[in-house]
Amino acid sequence: MAFTDITDIQDNIFERRESKVRSYCRNFDTLFVKASGSEMTDASGKTYIDFLAGCSTLNYGHNDPDMKAALIEHITRDGVAHGLDMYTDAKADWLAAFEKHILTPRGMKDYKIMMTGPTGTNAVEAAVKLARKVTGRSNVVAFTNGFHGMTLGALALTGNAGKRAGAGLGGSGLHGTTHLPYAGAFGDDVDTLDQIEMMLENSSSGLDAPAAFIFEPIQGEGGLNAASKEWMQGIARLAKKHGALLIVDDIQAGCGRSGDYFGFEIAGIQPDIITQAKSLSGMGLPFACVLLKKEHDIWKPAEHNGTFRGNNHAFVTARVALEKFWSDDSFQKEVREKSEILTEGLKKIANLIPGAKLKGRGMMQGVDVGTGDLASDICSRAFEKGLIIETSGANDEVVKVLAPLTTPVDTFQKGLGILREAAEEATSSAKIAAE
Amino acid sequence: MAFTDITDIQDNIFERRESKVRSYCRNFDTLFVKASGSEMTDASGKTYIDFLAGCSTLNYGHNDPDMKAALIEHITRDGVAHGLDMYTDAKADWLAAFEKHILTPRGMKDYKIMMTGPTGTNAVEAAVKLARKVTGRSNVVAFTNGFHGMTLGALALTGNAGKRAGAGLGGSGLHGTTHLPYAGAFGDDVDTLDQIEMMLENSSSGLDAPAAFIFEPIQGEGGLNAASKEWMQGIARLAKKHGALLIVDDIQAGCGRSGDYFGFEIAGIQPDIITQAKSLSGMGLPFACVLLKKEHDIWKPAEHNGTFRGNNHAFVTARVALEKFWSDDSFQKEVREKSEILTEGLKKIANLIPGAKLKGRGMMQGVDVGTGDLASDICSRAFEKGLIIETSGANDEVVKVLAPLTTPVDTFQKGLGILREAAEEATSSAKIAAE
Amino acid sequence: MAFTDITDIQDNIFERRESKVRSYCRNFDTLFVKASGSEMTDASGKTYIDFLAGCSTLNYGHNDPDMKAALIEHITRDGVAHGLDMYTDAKADWLAAFEKHILTPRGMKDYKIMMTGPTGTNAVEAAVKLARKVTGRSNVVAFTNGFHGMTLGALALTGNAGKRAGAGLGGSGLHGTTHLPYAGAFGDDVDTLDQIEMMLENSSSGLDAPAAFIFEPIQGEGGLNAASKEWMQGIARLAKKHGALLIVDDIQAGCGRSGDYFGFEIAGIQPDIITQAKSLSGMGLPFACVLLKKEHDIWKPAEHNGTFRGNNHAFVTARVALEKFWSDDSFQKEVREKSEILTEGLKKIANLIPGAKLKGRGMMQGVDVGTGDLASDICSRAFEKGLIIETSGANDEVVKVLAPLTTPVDTFQKGLGILREAAEEATSSAKIAAE
Amino acid sequence: MAFTDITDIQDNIFERRESKVRSYCRNFDTLFVKASGSEMTDASGKTYIDFLAGCSTLNYGHNDPDMKAALIEHITRDGVAHGLDMYTDAKADWLAAFEKHILTPRGMKDYKIMMTGPTGTNAVEAAVKLARKVTGRSNVVAFTNGFHGMTLGALALTGNAGKRAGAGLGGSGLHGTTHLPYAGAFGDDVDTLDQIEMMLENSSSGLDAPAAFIFEPIQGEGGLNAASKEWMQGIARLAKKHGALLIVDDIQAGCGRSGDYFGFEIAGIQPDIITQAKSLSGMGLPFACVLLKKEHDIWKPAEHNGTFRGNNHAFVTARVALEKFWSDDSFQKEVREKSEILTEGLKKIANLIPGAKLKGRGMMQGVDVGTGDLASDICSRAFEKGLIIETSGANDEVVKVLAPLTTPVDTFQKGLGILREAAEEATSSAKIAAE
Repeated sequence: MAFTDITDIQDNIFERRESKVRSYCRNFDTLFVKASGSEMTDASGKTYIDFLAGCSTLNYGHNDPDMKAALIEHITRDGVAHGLDMYTDAKADWLAAFEKHILTPRGMKDYKIMMTGPTGTNAVEAAVKLARKVTGRSNVVAFTNGFHGMTLGALALTGNAGKRAGAGLGGSGLHGTTHLPYAGAFGDDVDTLDQIEMMLENSSSGLDAPAAFIFEPIQGEGGLNAASKEWMQGIARLAKKHGALLIVDDIQAGCGRSGDYFGFEIAGIQPDIITQAKSLSGMGLPFACVLLKKEHDIWKPAEHNGTFRGNNHAFVTARVALEKFWSDDSFQKEVREKSEILTEGLKKIANLIPGAKLKGRGMMQGVDVGTGDLASDICSRAFEKGLIIETSGANDEVVKVLAPLTTPVDTFQKGLGILREAAEEATSSAKIAAE
Repeated sequence: MAFTDITDIQDNIFERRESKVRSYCRNFDTLFVKASGSEMTDASGKTYIDFLAGCSTLNYGHNDPDMKAALIEHITRDGVAHGLDMYTDAKADWLAAFEKHILTPRGMKDYKIMMTGPTGTNAVEAAVKLARKVTGRSNVVAFTNGFHGMTLGALALTGNAGKRAGAGLGGSGLHGTTHLPYAGAFGDDVDTLDQIEMMLENSSSGLDAPAAFIFEPIQGEGGLNAASKEWMQGIARLAKKHGALLIVDDIQAGCGRSGDYFGFEIAGIQPDIITQAKSLSGMGLPFACVLLKKEHDIWKPAEHNGTFRGNNHAFVTARVALEKFWSDDSFQKEVREKSEILTEGLKKIANLIPGAKLKGRGMMQGVDVGTGDLASDICSRAFEKGLIIETSGANDEVVKVLAPLTTPVDTFQKGLGILREAAEEATSSAKIAAE
Repeated sequence: MAFTDITDIQDNIFERRESKVRSYCRNFDTLFVKASGSEMTDASGKTYIDFLAGCSTLNYGHNDPDMKAALIEHITRDGVAHGLDMYTDAKADWLAAFEKHILTPRGMKDYKIMMTGPTGTNAVEAAVKLARKVTGRSNVVAFTNGFHGMTLGALALTGNAGKRAGAGLGGSGLHGTTHLPYAGAFGDDVDTLDQIEMMLENSSSGLDAPAAFIFEPIQGEGGLNAASKEWMQGIARLAKKHGALLIVDDIQAGCGRSGDYFGFEIAGIQPDIITQAKSLSGMGLPFACVLLKKEHDIWKPAEHNGTFRGNNHAFVTARVALEKFWSDDSFQKEVREKSEILTEGLKKIANLIPGAKLKGRGMMQGVDVGTGDLASDICSRAFEKGLIIETSGANDEVVKVLAPLTTPVDTFQKGLGILREAAEEATSSAKIAAE
Repeated sequence: MAFTDITDIQDNIFERRESKVRSYCRNFDTLFVKASGSEMTDASGKTYIDFLAGCSTLNYGHNDPDMKAALIEHITRDGVAHGLDMYTDAKADWLAAFEKHILTPRGMKDYKIMMTGPTGTNAVEAAVKLARKVTGRSNVVAFTNGFHGMTLGALALTGNAGKRAGAGLGGSGLHGTTHLPYAGAFGDDVDTLDQIEMMLENSSSGLDAPAAFIFEPIQGEGGLNAASKEWMQGIARLAKKHGALLIVDDIQAGCGRSGDYFGFEIAGIQPDIITQAKSLSGMGLPFACVLLKKEHDIWKPAEHNGTFRGNNHAFVTARVALEKFWSDDSFQKEVREKSEILTEGLKKIANLIPGAKLKGRGMMQGVDVGTGDLASDICSRAFEKGLIIETSGANDEVVKVLAPLTTPVDTFQKGLGILREAAEEATSSAKIAAE
């Protein structure tokens, strides 16, 4: 490695060459050089517990040794590296593993897999295009606080005003979508499902017949809002009744994060279309796909194409992930146990802060601490103490734990301990400032 | 590898599980298991010369040994694998190499680099969003036969009716763009630049003041149309005069393909925004970025974000590519010499076919054989003979050569020989059929 | 008159020549040849009491003798007839009368008047364009069951799915608007204002910062939903707080229909923009305008133009209407008294029908009879008995009384009597059918 | 009349109360009180020859005595005045006259008539909505320098940048249209039809399959560009070939202005849809309609509605116009003779100005004098001398003669004489200024 002094590197290269749009590096202002399991190490040798996990791309931790070995073997033997959607052994093996370990046990034999560009937003765009083709309708219903990506079609579905501003002209290019209230958006007393139904049933509501509904089972960026089983079932029912497709955007909540493989499994629904990305490759490599019911597979060959729709390196590691973690239910059980540890740990933190609320579900939980300032202060203090963690929510008011699902219990507890310390300090500091 | 029989694999898995949208695999209907340099090998052991090069993602060939070595070293030592845009050594090293070998020698010190999602369409979307933000305008001028991607914002810029149909509803969701005639679109006698200028100068033309012009220096998917130096300069001049940004989409023509590093270098222009992808990683891994002039870097932190905007594996191989091929001008010279071989080889093929025309520039050339049927027949016959090659153009009427730039001369000649044979046979067969 | 036999006329000319889109004539299937005060007469000599009043264009009745006289005088002396927006005496006189009788007494001296094309939809389009220009924003918030016109910009604001279908392609061309719940849209228990405020305050709700809110004080086509004073004030407050303009579409509820000159007067608000049409000319002639606060008058000359923006015949009759009915408050008092008669009359009808509800306010009231079938049956029977009356509402479930405000009390009572008879018969008939 | 002093009036009322958007009154800054035949009289008693004719709404002159008489008779006998689309005698009589005098003699028995809101833009909106419904497509092809109205759907078709700016946000709300070059837009040497065909035939041109083509036979606002017979036929042919409807916007060129009743008659085409307005009522009253071929009459009842779609006063005068001017071909002959006088008169004016060009056709001709400044100076001087005349064109560079078709020859010559004087003076003055 050419650099050892972080200041020097930043002065010399990141600050000088990278656009101001860069984001995560701003909160974690050090040079990372190594990552393994649940920990990252920077150029100075300092090690951090990782409660961000590449924003949920590392459900199985950094550099899993079995994935590493398989990938090195593939590269060494000149396995196909490029991403054009040709038939390769790596792809065939992944497809077979996905069928065996995911689809078949869940009674999902009717789903086909569409390889899209290897990012979540590409998958969402493909999903929405398909829904419009299938239904011959235009309007896609998304939900408050939803986050679906940055390309124009996905951004139109995303609620965040700051992100929407990126499109220029006050969102005037973000068409063809309606944003309705997510589960709980108007407080616990209001059943938003009822209101959505009234809008759909009223032929003068101005809500054009939807091509699709798209929701996240747990809203990752939107503040760890978790939809109830009943709400998900209700949307599925309304979609069916009104001739719309149901798209579940399972990019952040999927791949085991919720405690099941899919974030919507607890609701027992079978969405028409499912988007996957983030932890799909197992190792953090770019990889995304769309699952769709066979009856909707009306694409013409190459009607949606792209250069990197077959990342073979990702196929290799993704297959290992499926075989290692999803061939039986032991991993799932482990995740559920760890989720309880998480809930307990977060309760203690919430108790420190008046009005704080637990958010989320499974290994996708956090604490709404009331303000973005406090949440940000907690995360900054945690980072200084060796914990990588981020905020979430419309006002960044939620401290969000996205630890690798494979985090050893003692490391997990240690991380939660650091977080509690940081919360204590930040709360005390806020009290002193207020006095 | 688990499978040896291709029929069995297809029956069992690709046909069963993959969406009908899959594309390249349809023309190259075999199971590839190995790729090195300019050749790919299938499960039966048959070896193919590759004149497609992952659709120009492999300008440096498959599995370059130096890239492989560096990547294996990175993986072995637990280098950061995930793609969140944190500061890492791999990223710093790539940025420094890009500055040293590409920007500085070309007097482009004013450019900043925006990491986007790792596909071309993500880069195009980011470019267009930025142009709209910077100018406060909406309309983006794209050109006939242009191809810029499949997500909604990029698809609106893409000319191809089949691809546009993917958005559903007859393109009604594809807004904010105007398609004007590319260089030569109305034949050699018509200077489309003149007409574009007339449209811009006429305040009643209905052409809304553009936020940007976006063009490919050589249209890869659109039929290997190459813009002249003068045309590119003209568009740059008109953009400046009318307060629009100039975006050059250099995704397919860049990274040396044209004979220079950038496809627009021969015109001596400095675009406001440049998109890069395809061969950027050197090894075919998903990687894309946007170059933008400093004055346009008005992004707020995270205003355009995404999970895979820092593919560290790609940084590693991309750095090796820059150091190995762009530290002096020897590679560039080699490419130009090879381009002449290509021109000569294609002339011979064109001579076989009445009305055939040479298209393109540099190592991005082909032959317009008049009809898609003939071009397709030539490519099919070539594949049977061990050559991977594709068509291009609105009617697939161009046989397109996109060989790795590193292809050894004898392999290159051998490939051209196969292509000529295939063209001879296809032409004879077409004549017989016509009689 | 050339025709005396209605069957003959229809066979010969309406059916043969008029597009199927024709509407009102379908329910009132006779040839009208004469109209005076509150009555219309057909070719057979049959006279009808008019409870439709040209869909509220005839608040002062048919062919008011003073308006007739003034108009005949104007025509006779070759007063300017055409509609180009030149300075004419007729226009000056109307402007002066509008200032004197409407603006000044209401403390509205800050309003300017924009002459638009002479229909409601033209006024709405102008209002919305102006709001977008003033705010530099795109999104306009309209409300469920709102009706604002048939041209593309106004239709995007209109809730009715059937009307929206007229634009083709499932509403995909109807952009730049958000439909939120009107007062009472989710029942009496839900304060939609609260929810609208939550959407506006949540920066991740997906609700783009609005250029304007547009509402009707009483929804004429949408089912005679009347917004409360508090709701109108609340929307005004939210608009101001969030930098949006408040547009009140007073086309159907204005010109005295509500009991005040403007439909929003009871709320004591001063909208940024007000649209007027329908009864503005006094005599049913095409005439519309936009009132806007001076600070928003940023139009460039002719930036919004049109050929018929100065209908001089309408200026003449409109001036007479202002002088005759609005020079003191006697007309207003008369309307309010008549409104009470209407409420009493409708209560009796509602009592006939289980579940029926009174709707509306002032001289814009009706009865929600539960189903469109019943409402339609009542109106058909009424027509046979000599009463012209229409339905309203998303399912045409509201029998709507829009009598001229000048209807003599005995005629009004007679009309209400016919309506009650019709309701009795229709209800009995429905009961019998149900048995 | 209440005012006699124009300054006083303006200070008191127009300036104080009218929005800055007002337009025609700015160039003709006097108070008109009387108009008859080809002349208008202001409050001071000064009489002007009218070469604007209410912007072509007064093809039959001001206050035609027969129309006046019929209208007064209708009003006097309490004929229906309002505009709801009920069946009335006035409407039946107009429909019958239109069938007899216009449709039947031209072999147009297949056309139906759709009553729209009584302005040109309403008719255009209805036409475009219908074309989208019929074809299931979205894109409408309009032409450079075309002018179709100010409501959002029509404005999207209008070329003028100033008008488009009225919609706010740089035209970002003006969707679903493509602007292609009108006949002669790139000079006489370029056949734009050829290029349009190439765009349509190239499946990668980015030109989405059009729902319709819409053009004006002679562009009134766009600078009196007249399409050749061949160009109109060519567009008709391309529309048919590509499954698009042909809409002719005959609002300004129709009702005899071109020398035929319809502006497209010389081309012998039968458009799918024709829009009419301006002179349709004969007397300058608001009136518009859409003619459509029976096969396209797929509207549902009331799918496009509106309050003023049956202006009975206009029916009365429109019927008189048809009977008086179109019952035989004498009027048409007279118009053609007058057109020759106009051509001769304009030639003399054009000869005064180096580079000046004659524009237009029939009684819709003018002179392109090179700059808007000169044209404007000519028109101002003419107005001082007692002639009402306006400019046209993207830069207002065309002096446009739109005299009533009924103008007596001596008045016509007198007006042309004034115009020549004004042109002489303006040209001299411009020369002196240049020296």
